[in-house]
Amino acid sequence: MQIRKGTAADIPAVYDLIYELAVYEKAPHEVDNTVERMLEDGFGEKPIFEFFVAEDAQKQIQGIALYYYRYSTWKGKCIYLEDFVVRESERGKGTGRLLFDELVREAQRVGARLITWQVLDWNEPAINFYKKLEADLDSGWINCKLSKNQIDNYFKL
Amino acid sequence: MQIRKGTAADIPAVYDLIYELAVYEKAPHEVDNTVERMLEDGFGEKPIFEFFVAEDAQKQIQGIALYYYRYSTWKGKCIYLEDFVVRESERGKGTGRLLFDELVREAQRVGARLITWQVLDWNEPAINFYKKLEADLDSGWINCKLSKNQIDNYFKL
Repeated sequence: MQIRKGTAADIPAVYDLIYELAVYEKAPHEVDNTVERMLEDGFGEKPIFEFFVAEDAQKQIQGIALYYYRYSTWKGKCIYLEDFVVRESERGKGTGRLLFDELVREAQRVGARLITWQVLDWNEPAINFYKKLEADLDSGWINCKLSKNQIDNYFKL
Repeated sequence: MQIRKGTAADIPAVYDLIYELAVYEKAPHEVDNTVERMLEDGFGEKPIFEFFVAEDAQKQIQGIALYYYRYSTWKGKCIYLEDFVVRESERGKGTGRLLFDELVREAQRVGARLITWQVLDWNEPAINFYKKLEADLDSGWINCKLSKNQIDNYFKL
């Protein structure tokens, strides 16, 4: 399994894996992104995410770690791991660890002061993986959001 | 109270409010950012955050809404509200709502598909404020992180 930086040509495979993760997270109906928008958002004038891929000997993409930079007012520049997926048939073989290792190398290269991500509280295999990394897991926060529809109608209600 | 876009000259006041919020969130020891780093991170070659300020008639900054763009692989470009603070003596007078309204206007201007943020699960006044906005509050996620020290030592352990 080779780990390398992702390119525009990988986006269709990346989108498939994002969808696979959304199904696993019981939220496929939440995905309304498209391959076209991801190409623009990742490789257009102002790229807003980057990713690593795990590619097998047949050049099939078996896993991704998609991330972007965030700003912690407490710590400074940090990396946020938005989507971290290994294809189901390939799990348990160390591919996730290879991807995560590469993310940490990236953090070291750019001098990121923090790597953060989230995990669903019932996703035990992932939680165990993160515990092995000795990551700090903290469940005292509630996620809040306004959808596109709510944003559009915010001043109309 | 006037709401306007923040400038480099506001950073010392912004830093004070960030620290005030960290104290309220029982985590002042977590703040190791500095005014100097914030100036570079917000107004250097590659700005990574923006903010609105609430300024009173005496030109004192009484509140901030600091945000940056994130990427949701499910939705696309979104705004993340990293720090949202009104000085304690000024709370309950509508300043927070003015700041939040401006953030929504910004989301509409740039076509953001989502506004997200987090709130501590014991912070009832804030939770009630967000419920009044009819925001979606979801506590099924655990936050995970690797600190700078863990990043630096990741391959040494």
